[in-house]
Amino acid sequence: MDVEIITIGDEIISGHTIDTNSAYIAKKLADIGLWVTYKSAVGDEQKRMEEAIYLALKRADIVITTGGLGPTDDDITKRAIVKVFKRNLVFNEDVLEDIRRRYDARGIKMPSINQNQALLPQGAVYLPNRTGSAVGILIEEDKKIFVALPGVPREMEIIVTEELSPFLASKVSKGSLRVIKLRTTGIIESALAEKIMHITAKLPESIRFAYLPSYGGVDLRIVSFGEIKESADLPAEELAKQLREVIGIYIYGEGDDTLEGVIGRLLLEKNRTLATAESCTAGLLAGQITSVAGSSGYFERGVITYSNRSKIELLGVPENIIDTYGAVSIETAEAMAAGIRERANVDYGVSITGIAGPDGGTEQKPVGTVFIATASKNGIRSKKLNLSKDREINRIRSVYAALELIRRTILEID
Amino acid sequence: MDVEIITIGDEIISGHTIDTNSAYIAKKLADIGLWVTYKSAVGDEQKRMEEAIYLALKRADIVITTGGLGPTDDDITKRAIVKVFKRNLVFNEDVLEDIRRRYDARGIKMPSINQNQALLPQGAVYLPNRTGSAVGILIEEDKKIFVALPGVPREMEIIVTEELSPFLASKVSKGSLRVIKLRTTGIIESALAEKIMHITAKLPESIRFAYLPSYGGVDLRIVSFGEIKESADLPAEELAKQLREVIGIYIYGEGDDTLEGVIGRLLLEKNRTLATAESCTAGLLAGQITSVAGSSGYFERGVITYSNRSKIELLGVPENIIDTYGAVSIETAEAMAAGIRERANVDYGVSITGIAGPDGGTEQKPVGTVFIATASKNGIRSKKLNLSKDREINRIRSVYAALELIRRTILEID
Repeated sequence: MDVEIITIGDEIISGHTIDTNSAYIAKKLADIGLWVTYKSAVGDEQKRMEEAIYLALKRADIVITTGGLGPTDDDITKRAIVKVFKRNLVFNEDVLEDIRRRYDARGIKMPSINQNQALLPQGAVYLPNRTGSAVGILIEEDKKIFVALPGVPREMEIIVTEELSPFLASKVSKGSLRVIKLRTTGIIESALAEKIMHITAKLPESIRFAYLPSYGGVDLRIVSFGEIKESADLPAEELAKQLREVIGIYIYGEGDDTLEGVIGRLLLEKNRTLATAESCTAGLLAGQITSVAGSSGYFERGVITYSNRSKIELLGVPENIIDTYGAVSIETAEAMAAGIRERANVDYGVSITGIAGPDGGTEQKPVGTVFIATASKNGIRSKKLNLSKDREINRIRSVYAALELIRRTILEID
Repeated sequence: MDVEIITIGDEIISGHTIDTNSAYIAKKLADIGLWVTYKSAVGDEQKRMEEAIYLALKRADIVITTGGLGPTDDDITKRAIVKVFKRNLVFNEDVLEDIRRRYDARGIKMPSINQNQALLPQGAVYLPNRTGSAVGILIEEDKKIFVALPGVPREMEIIVTEELSPFLASKVSKGSLRVIKLRTTGIIESALAEKIMHITAKLPESIRFAYLPSYGGVDLRIVSFGEIKESADLPAEELAKQLREVIGIYIYGEGDDTLEGVIGRLLLEKNRTLATAESCTAGLLAGQITSVAGSSGYFERGVITYSNRSKIELLGVPENIIDTYGAVSIETAEAMAAGIRERANVDYGVSITGIAGPDGGTEQKPVGTVFIATASKNGIRSKKLNLSKDREINRIRSVYAALELIRRTILEID
């Protein structure tokens, strides 16, 4: 079954807002074995919207729009829908009641403009929105499934996860489906492929296997189909088991796990604390660690030692180490990690120092040379990274490499 | 003239990579008065690619693709192009020579697979790529302009800025065009609109005016058309002048200026230094300040004081201030800013402390309560922010508010 996603809104078409909704929907649908074949985007213009929906219904089995369901004048998706499907907008009392209840709960009188939100295309089913006033709209006609979702990411995400995804899963899969996503880091795609090729080369037709690379690592996605639950589950689990045996050391989590989330769980479980000392990444590592809600339970502090003076004052890095080896060196990285561990009085210290670029490179230490280190009761670990010429990419990849070094330090694995 | 952008690649269609290219192109084209009416995306599948290009050529005057120009087997955009335009691929000696020269310069033998990069559709003009091997391709036929660009963002951006944008500007504008983008922060769209409505309500037809809001602030874009340069320039400059008179205090820059870039320039000009003390943003402020190349010229250090102990140890925040007013308070924010200024021995100290959420809120200080402060030789400035329930948004908006407070502190304006 082919899926097409249509993103609606002037802010998308003008490039002022980056469309992340269609990527979110595509990933969620892949988890239930549905693949997007086209994406398109149109502005807040009814005629172009109608054309886009019409075209999508011709070339796809499932069409999902996002955006343009708000109560104001420029939200005209519903008008386009009823035009394409040749229906009327009818008033839905349940939807209005839902919206009114949520306003009541906050002690606010519902603005009358919200009455528009209760108008739905005749015969449409609505997908409840528990965080906003724009419900999702679902129409089935001529073996096609059409869905309109709000454009506010948070609202769209909740409706997709709680309503749409289960509905489509029940609708489309004749049999059963199992998805396992293994998340790896610290190894590039081609090296991974070489290690597991003997396993992945001989997979049955009922299993799809994909590499999904990003700056943070490479995800391995297994999608297994079967007539019954067991015949989907067992081959997927068996394959995951085989992969774990060969490349388990690179796997930090599954599904929606993140490296910073995994580290957080480990630290909470073991009742340990962490502090950071960053130079070229200048706070991005700490920023990522603390993107986890509740990170104050284990993250004690961080320092951003951009200048040599700050490395000496805040971390006690010996001046002669900086003089002899340079501020960007394995020796300085190790002294930074040890320094923050001691001064913050935490279980784990982690450090990053490097040349992010575009300037500052030398022949011996070109742009992209980064050193990372961790300090724990078991001593110091450190690593040299040879990254790219791009400042932003170097900073991001350094953060992920440091997170992985923390994970391995906590788990005491190499 | 209508523009359609087609993004090509399985990674885009699957949602694994967020498409930022089409937004970049749309924004750059808006600066020369060209508006995107459709965007679409297809995977690495030749037939769908051909259909998408064919359709786009029917409904738009300018069609721009991005992606699929690499040398490997799954990069098949060129094959789709020659099919749609009924042309052959011919070998271009100049392109090959360019690529070979760049490999020579790095002392590497050119991999033979790169020969593919010198194959171009017959009659196409190529747009040089000075950072990669995939050149842009430009075909003019039947009053339509077709352009294929590489998918690597950095390479695409350079070709658009240096080659495509000047070409299209010369091609499409019969008369003259002037774009001025004023960048504001610290004021919401509706409040801005109220202040300048008396100016923007009576604009002539030859001027388009738009509000472009984001978490960092609201951009105001003026696009002015005229028969000759003067008749485009003068009305745009006059409007910009009027706006500056009314809301100049909120304008931190123009065009591609960023808040962190403006701050960097000010500090370098005045030969001043800066240090940061962050709690809830945990390094994101320092990360943004140091995203500017050369920021080591003025950014001395930063501390991330997540725990109370670290606020006391690293910043000298008096324990009784934390006990009396709380770690999230205007008093603590001010003590943090003063503390980092003194300890880092810099001209400006800046601090952020707040409750990012989702937990930690109280009735008096709900989630979204954030305090920011700066310290300079002129004393302390501080501000309370009342943000949202969303942890990530709160962190981003706190960073921008603190950057703006730094800018105003340096400029000594209220």
